[in-house]
Amino acid sequence: MKFTCKKEDICSAINNVSKAVSPKSTIAALEGIKLRLDMSSLELTGYDLEIGITTYIECDSSDTGEIVLNSRLFSEITRRMPSDLITYDIDDNLNMKIYGGNAEYQISAISAEEYPALPEIERENPILINQEVLKSMINQTNYATSLNDAKPILTGELFDIENSGINMVAIDGFRLAIRYEKINCADKHYFVVPSKALLEASRILKEDAENDCEIFVNSKHILFDINGYRIFTRLLEGEFHNYKNSVPKEFKTEVIVKTSDIVHCLERCSLLLNEKNKAPVKCTFGNGEIKINCKTGIGRLDDSIEAEINGESVLIGFNNKYLLDALKAADTDKVRIQMIGANRAVKIVPFQGDSFTFIVMPVQIKG
Amino acid sequence: MKFTCKKEDICSAINNVSKAVSPKSTIAALEGIKLRLDMSSLELTGYDLEIGITTYIECDSSDTGEIVLNSRLFSEITRRMPSDLITYDIDDNLNMKIYGGNAEYQISAISAEEYPALPEIERENPILINQEVLKSMINQTNYATSLNDAKPILTGELFDIENSGINMVAIDGFRLAIRYEKINCADKHYFVVPSKALLEASRILKEDAENDCEIFVNSKHILFDINGYRIFTRLLEGEFHNYKNSVPKEFKTEVIVKTSDIVHCLERCSLLLNEKNKAPVKCTFGNGEIKINCKTGIGRLDDSIEAEINGESVLIGFNNKYLLDALKAADTDKVRIQMIGANRAVKIVPFQGDSFTFIVMPVQIKG
Repeated sequence: MKFTCKKEDICSAINNVSKAVSPKSTIAALEGIKLRLDMSSLELTGYDLEIGITTYIECDSSDTGEIVLNSRLFSEITRRMPSDLITYDIDDNLNMKIYGGNAEYQISAISAEEYPALPEIERENPILINQEVLKSMINQTNYATSLNDAKPILTGELFDIENSGINMVAIDGFRLAIRYEKINCADKHYFVVPSKALLEASRILKEDAENDCEIFVNSKHILFDINGYRIFTRLLEGEFHNYKNSVPKEFKTEVIVKTSDIVHCLERCSLLLNEKNKAPVKCTFGNGEIKINCKTGIGRLDDSIEAEINGESVLIGFNNKYLLDALKAADTDKVRIQMIGANRAVKIVPFQGDSFTFIVMPVQIKG
Repeated sequence: MKFTCKKEDICSAINNVSKAVSPKSTIAALEGIKLRLDMSSLELTGYDLEIGITTYIECDSSDTGEIVLNSRLFSEITRRMPSDLITYDIDDNLNMKIYGGNAEYQISAISAEEYPALPEIERENPILINQEVLKSMINQTNYATSLNDAKPILTGELFDIENSGINMVAIDGFRLAIRYEKINCADKHYFVVPSKALLEASRILKEDAENDCEIFVNSKHILFDINGYRIFTRLLEGEFHNYKNSVPKEFKTEVIVKTSDIVHCLERCSLLLNEKNKAPVKCTFGNGEIKINCKTGIGRLDDSIEAEINGESVLIGFNNKYLLDALKAADTDKVRIQMIGANRAVKIVPFQGDSFTFIVMPVQIKG
């Protein structure tokens, strides 16, 4: 099995599929990239049993076959080859020669039989989403997925598709993020995708791409086809939180504030907070300003920012990180913060439109 | 004690002096930056008992006094203040207010009495060296200092100044780096400066600076005055290796090679080498080329590059890292590699001039 390909092509393919390779595994094949050669087409796959990434590049060959190469070594050798064309030549004893220019490496390959089977996902009836839109949906909600394995379903994000609209939803028990967009899809879908796979997809999604992302889903797996890369993963099983019931329908106080103002203010609070020094951030909304103060063993901060306050004045305590994560995920210059009272969930929405809905639970303030 | 200064000025001062602050110490004051206020001049010092960095900034004040502030907190709070002017106000109970715009922090300061005494170095008879030259001298020799505390003197670099010339020398027993420049200094000096202090100096040295670096040295300490920053450290005591005797005076083979060619080739070798897989890199110099090969448990590499070879053909084994470090430190397009035989020290000098002399000991090749 022998093939020659462009250094540039194979480097970028390795770079992307290697993101799905286990950095450390007791099974050598899982630290590898699987190569499947079919004449002039070379398929490269990285798969850590949780997420897989596959892509294809053109090559010059008249052979077919499969082999696995240690990802790190394959990547570094390829990147450092002195020539623009690189030839890979594997014999029946798994000895691999890699050569180009005056340099020739000999390393050991791994039999493809040791590589795990990949899930089969039929490429029919794709859900199409604009790449830039999907990227923003992932990046604006991912912060609210749970890092805790106690409820595995919450380590993923819900895709709730109906009536030609999609809600992407993440929730960890303390905050909830919903991102809505209209899409061109008449079907109804309801499935939960692991957060890590979405972050990998986000990395490959391009903001200025011409092609939509194609999503293929069956009862067990999902495949994102993006710019020639196929990212696949198992769907999470279990019952997702009925998120629509958690969104407050009313408010007594609405605050309109410049997003960067309140973000910078909360970032100043974060300097006083760490594992050993915890305290709620107290926010007083009233009289045309938000007063923010925070006091811990490290010190105290008194700060205030201008805001438009409509309705009753209110004092609410927040977990600084939760409020900050939500406001950082807001991509609008101004946000509306809607509150019912000190101990009720707080809702953050864009100044205009309904693209995101972020819910943050308050923290009780003593005394 | 109260002063107001520009955010920009104090941020950059903190950023530089904090490099000399202990990241972790049982003495809280050593994790701090010492501030000494003298009316409109504020002195900031970081000092980890080994290296110190001091600088001055202008401020608006009519007070004098000394105080220590935790470096990390001081830095982060200052950097995140919302205003261009920041006021620092310390009361007698070590309570410090930091305010600007609508934000006001209150944190605890540390008494300056807990800060260690700084060495006193008279600022007389400076040795002057062009900043760009000194920076290159440090960066081209520092690789060869010893990381091993067994011979503390070798963890520093020798400044050997006489006859209006300076040799900067580093040696670790396996390689030797000498960097020579003419300087405007009639005195004779011979002292050894800790490597870490030189790296800090290098960081502050500018390539396009108008002013020379001023060096003040006494029997125990050295002070570099660079762009308003004073870096001071204790000199290393002990007898430095008589380096001039280690430089071969003759050669039987001289190789002229493009520096980047051989560097890239040795970098390819390094992919086959790690803690568990060690082997010499075999270099055969002859017939208009350098053949390089390396074989370990990871695999093997056969490579070759064009070179001009004068004299006998020779096969020499090298520790890949030692040869690579030396060649990477060479700042000329081509180098001359001069050899006497397989088991004799190898000398690397510029194609033209005498700015550097790098000596690398070979590794014996079995069989």
